[in-house]
Amino acid sequence: MPQRIDGRAPDDLRPVRIQPGYLLYAEGSALIETGSTRVLCAVSVEERVPAFLKGTGRGWVTAEYGMLPRSTLTRTPREAQGRERGRTYEIQRLIGRALRAAVDLEALGERTFIVDCDVLQADGGTRTASITGGYVALYQAFLNLLKRDILRTLPIRSAVAAVSVGVVDGEVLLDLCYEEDFRAQVDCTLVMNERGEIVEVHSATEGAPFSRATLERLLALGEQGVRRLLEVQARAIQALP
Amino acid sequence: MPQRIDGRAPDDLRPVRIQPGYLLYAEGSALIETGSTRVLCAVSVEERVPAFLKGTGRGWVTAEYGMLPRSTLTRTPREAQGRERGRTYEIQRLIGRALRAAVDLEALGERTFIVDCDVLQADGGTRTASITGGYVALYQAFLNLLKRDILRTLPIRSAVAAVSVGVVDGEVLLDLCYEEDFRAQVDCTLVMNERGEIVEVHSATEGAPFSRATLERLLALGEQGVRRLLEVQARAIQALP
Amino acid sequence: MPQRIDGRAPDDLRPVRIQPGYLLYAEGSALIETGSTRVLCAVSVEERVPAFLKGTGRGWVTAEYGMLPRSTLTRTPREAQGRERGRTYEIQRLIGRALRAAVDLEALGERTFIVDCDVLQADGGTRTASITGGYVALYQAFLNLLKRDILRTLPIRSAVAAVSVGVVDGEVLLDLCYEEDFRAQVDCTLVMNERGEIVEVHSATEGAPFSRATLERLLALGEQGVRRLLEVQARAIQALP
Amino acid sequence: MPQRIDGRAPDDLRPVRIQPGYLLYAEGSALIETGSTRVLCAVSVEERVPAFLKGTGRGWVTAEYGMLPRSTLTRTPREAQGRERGRTYEIQRLIGRALRAAVDLEALGERTFIVDCDVLQADGGTRTASITGGYVALYQAFLNLLKRDILRTLPIRSAVAAVSVGVVDGEVLLDLCYEEDFRAQVDCTLVMNERGEIVEVHSATEGAPFSRATLERLLALGEQGVRRLLEVQARAIQALP
Amino acid sequence: MPQRIDGRAPDDLRPVRIQPGYLLYAEGSALIETGSTRVLCAVSVEERVPAFLKGTGRGWVTAEYGMLPRSTLTRTPREAQGRERGRTYEIQRLIGRALRAAVDLEALGERTFIVDCDVLQADGGTRTASITGGYVALYQAFLNLLKRDILRTLPIRSAVAAVSVGVVDGEVLLDLCYEEDFRAQVDCTLVMNERGEIVEVHSATEGAPFSRATLERLLALGEQGVRRLLEVQARAIQALP
Amino acid sequence: MPQRIDGRAPDDLRPVRIQPGYLLYAEGSALIETGSTRVLCAVSVEERVPAFLKGTGRGWVTAEYGMLPRSTLTRTPREAQGRERGRTYEIQRLIGRALRAAVDLEALGERTFIVDCDVLQADGGTRTASITGGYVALYQAFLNLLKRDILRTLPIRSAVAAVSVGVVDGEVLLDLCYEEDFRAQVDCTLVMNERGEIVEVHSATEGAPFSRATLERLLALGEQGVRRLLEVQARAIQALP
Repeated sequence: MPQRIDGRAPDDLRPVRIQPGYLLYAEGSALIETGSTRVLCAVSVEERVPAFLKGTGRGWVTAEYGMLPRSTLTRTPREAQGRERGRTYEIQRLIGRALRAAVDLEALGERTFIVDCDVLQADGGTRTASITGGYVALYQAFLNLLKRDILRTLPIRSAVAAVSVGVVDGEVLLDLCYEEDFRAQVDCTLVMNERGEIVEVHSATEGAPFSRATLERLLALGEQGVRRLLEVQARAIQALP
Repeated sequence: MPQRIDGRAPDDLRPVRIQPGYLLYAEGSALIETGSTRVLCAVSVEERVPAFLKGTGRGWVTAEYGMLPRSTLTRTPREAQGRERGRTYEIQRLIGRALRAAVDLEALGERTFIVDCDVLQADGGTRTASITGGYVALYQAFLNLLKRDILRTLPIRSAVAAVSVGVVDGEVLLDLCYEEDFRAQVDCTLVMNERGEIVEVHSATEGAPFSRATLERLLALGEQGVRRLLEVQARAIQALP
Repeated sequence: MPQRIDGRAPDDLRPVRIQPGYLLYAEGSALIETGSTRVLCAVSVEERVPAFLKGTGRGWVTAEYGMLPRSTLTRTPREAQGRERGRTYEIQRLIGRALRAAVDLEALGERTFIVDCDVLQADGGTRTASITGGYVALYQAFLNLLKRDILRTLPIRSAVAAVSVGVVDGEVLLDLCYEEDFRAQVDCTLVMNERGEIVEVHSATEGAPFSRATLERLLALGEQGVRRLLEVQARAIQALP
Repeated sequence: MPQRIDGRAPDDLRPVRIQPGYLLYAEGSALIETGSTRVLCAVSVEERVPAFLKGTGRGWVTAEYGMLPRSTLTRTPREAQGRERGRTYEIQRLIGRALRAAVDLEALGERTFIVDCDVLQADGGTRTASITGGYVALYQAFLNLLKRDILRTLPIRSAVAAVSVGVVDGEVLLDLCYEEDFRAQVDCTLVMNERGEIVEVHSATEGAPFSRATLERLLALGEQGVRRLLEVQARAIQALP
Repeated sequence: MPQRIDGRAPDDLRPVRIQPGYLLYAEGSALIETGSTRVLCAVSVEERVPAFLKGTGRGWVTAEYGMLPRSTLTRTPREAQGRERGRTYEIQRLIGRALRAAVDLEALGERTFIVDCDVLQADGGTRTASITGGYVALYQAFLNLLKRDILRTLPIRSAVAAVSVGVVDGEVLLDLCYEEDFRAQVDCTLVMNERGEIVEVHSATEGAPFSRATLERLLALGEQGVRRLLEVQARAIQALP
Repeated sequence: MPQRIDGRAPDDLRPVRIQPGYLLYAEGSALIETGSTRVLCAVSVEERVPAFLKGTGRGWVTAEYGMLPRSTLTRTPREAQGRERGRTYEIQRLIGRALRAAVDLEALGERTFIVDCDVLQADGGTRTASITGGYVALYQAFLNLLKRDILRTLPIRSAVAAVSVGVVDGEVLLDLCYEEDFRAQVDCTLVMNERGEIVEVHSATEGAPFSRATLERLLALGEQGVRRLLEVQARAIQALP
């Protein structure tokens, strides 16, 4: 079994570290590091909901995603983020759906939780790190609102975490770093919850269509990764004051 | 087995009709209708490639997607398309990847095929109709360039088609119309080729995580739908002059 | 008398065909074809009026105009429509004024009728086709609102239609196709109603100022064209259910 | 015969004053005042032409039009100029066509003359004042380039001037001020040259279609006005150093 | 002592001329000329205040700044003003702060005075001319509102005026023209009131850090200039009807 | 002497901490914390210069400034950064000028050093922290380019640092936190170098003009603060590998 660029086995995650409560003003926050990837997740609460939820008593969770100009190997001009907006929107819609699947929206009341995910350094897996770290930041925000009697119950249905898997040089690998991601024939993002259910799966290729058997192997490996990330999240949450 | 809104069985496609060569100036074109959904696909050829392909001898296929203001039940202002841009980019990136998987980019030479998919009427499934119809338009463009000796071989690797499947009221349904899509717990877009390989699968939920068994059923039903669409495409292509 | 590019006599219109009710969701719609030019007109009704009409009991008719990227001989990028916005605005202001002249705004109540004119294929005369087809779409919308008792009377004052005339190689021609328009010394847009009154006339030149006698001949020829278009409109309207 | 708001007879122009050479840096300039309307016209010369003229040896004349925020009765926010852009583009295209009709583009060489028309105060007739004053500014620029041996001949074919005419309360009036323009049933912009030829005529209505006889009367009255403006221009040009 | 480009002594102002009431519609206005620099200042009054002042009974003074395209030696395209927006905002924030320091905001009531400063010709010192001229325009607006009993007292605390000073070729100069400004090692904008207090001082360098002694000399020379400008303002105000 | 909000004496700085080399990909970087304010500075090198420097052999240093949405007490929407752009541009122009004053631009060669200053948390003094931290990041970038033989000498003329001073409740205070800044009558930004020269001073007021004596006291206190910051910088630089 050949070693990977950074010496990992095919089914190894990179080292993950989550610092909850990284920010002073945000209702909840977490700095998540997976390998060299660093994403700062910050939760803000606003006492309003999108138009389609007004009067329903239900709340909303939404995400925004950004990259600092020098989070990347070469600088990405701020203006270029306009051109890259397609990818950005796709990512933030994914993060939002994933986190909503973790939450009991009924229990939020008519308020919106905005999860800002800003990438300080990007070495692959920023969208999955945003989901995994965003969940912790959201959890802290819920705890804060419970303490302040704004929420009555913890509005969590099931923790969610996310990981990337892919086929690189014919081999199925877990948690791709940037260089692996760049060379991958098949690229798969998997979001699952702690009940072992799938929240979202997106598997795409740039020119190398794949069999259903390959999809099975990607899902099985991804599921292992998500399970380990759920443990890291749980420990980070226990460390909260 | 309960009937669907429009009387179909769960595994029925809506009536599909593809008019190839709908436009006069475009190198290739097709008007695809699936039920009330109508998408006009037009292929333009440009003698240049994106920067990362310059000097490689390879070509590119890319897609753009738009909706006419009154393609929708209530009018969508042109300005609002800015706000909806996230969804738009996500869709056109999907269409582009799907069509590239059908094509031998090496055989294109350094030129770009732009597939414009404009929705005249939207009743669900506009992104999958864009892929299915876009393939026919692209095929016509290739034939035209073959006739004009610009291409030497037909640069097709394998036909691709796409369909939506989903879980609505607990039941797995093929080819969702707008109302079914709106009510779906799980929503899945499946792109496959004529070799039975997966080109892309994207399965997401708004709040109802699902089991791997459900994913299996979605894939199996979607595969049936794609196979029938590939036949409709083949007939449309045979009708080309 | 020399023949024109497409074999017409100087005072010939191109074949005109109007399909009313082309769209399912729009309150009124029509697909108009004049030669190779094809414009899809869709009417939407909104229960609000511009600020200057609030509280007056009067309604409004306004138009928007767009071109699909591959409606033109070579593709016009969507972004380029920004640069072309000057021409676009000028055209949609013209269409709006022309259609308002056909309508009894008092009888509309405080609602706005938006006429979207989207060019599927452009071979000259798209602005005049938009007016001629837009009138039919608007008529259908009025009939629909009458049936639903939202309007009490048909708010029509006088049908309007529009045609282009021009001086090409010294000769006065009716209904210019793109190639004639491109080569025209004088270019004239004429909008008239069924009472034989002028609604708008705009005659301009790129470097070949003209006499009042020439203007007279343009108006006379244009009037003939408008009269025939009014007949085509009338037949399309009679075909409405 | 009823008097007008400002005491003029129906066929009176407002007092016109043209100060050529108002600006220090511009190649040509003129401040034109017609009644309370004041437009500052400035000509800049650039050693390049639009793409379609490259290599033809011909030059170009183009115009841009703007309004200072407090040129109007109530302030127009700078941002609102975006929304008003339709009208702006329509006006600057008109000014450009009108001035090009005055010029021998062949004699310009491959250079572009940009005529900036900025409205300091707007009391109706700003587009026609821009044309009338813009011609003087352009003439001065030509003289300057002749003196500097950049041009060999004065590239003028025929002076042009413009005026508005309209039907207000059933009466045909020359040179409408803002309040008359606002109340006009028919509104006509006429551009003519010193040979008595029409350069452009645009006659429109907001809801009061008019006969060809009315159009005749508008043209006749407008022609008188243009002739007087051509005299004012000629005197301003003679006053140039 | 070496002469300056335009023959002035180091402590000479350029000739200053203020025409108050230059515009017809604006509540207050002034055209200020300092040498070749010309700025048109126009005051508009709106019966609303920014959100942070609602309900406080206090008013606001704000400024906007713009340059006509051919105010500069070579033409500045209108679109380029976007790119130059940084400088523009910085200038208009400065003008706003300076004029607010002259005014008793409590005495304004909840209304906003917008001071539009549009540069007709730019030969250095446009921001300071905007402040000096803007004060006169504002004063006229206050007088107008007093006459119309909208204000009860003249809401002036102390006249303000502004001047630039700088170090050019090692010498401290007053009121820099464009060419001096371009070559200055140190550039200082000084705003003072008639009580001799500093309202704002901004002293910057492009690569030539300076001593506190130099700053002292700049302030002393600037103070002389401001004092003379305050006299010019006072005379302009006395000339108001 | 009354204590400040956070218990400091009037002439106390907040605790300052600079982590050089915080980022992996950037040529130079530093995370600076002053109290709760945290700014991430990242230097990127590009082998091109602005147009006005082409062919001169000189280089350039420029800065960009941004704030993460939840760096502030309440969330600032990303879109709102558009509206706040005036302030942003003003700040990044200041940072750029300040850092250029530290650098020997001749020794850079024709390349541009872009210093991105992104605020992770904002408690006052973000612009001065950006300058102080940006200098360290820039120094690291210079060292890196020296090691890689791209630069021959260290292109430093004199270290620069910046601090804010202000008058709050009549008292002159050093290094204002957000709450003090909000309540300040006079607000002064001071940038100085290690030779004790002033690089930039900007002292402004919102409604409380001040004497030259007050300005003297502000400068004196600010100078003390800058001197201490220069020491912190020096230690951070010594800690670089």
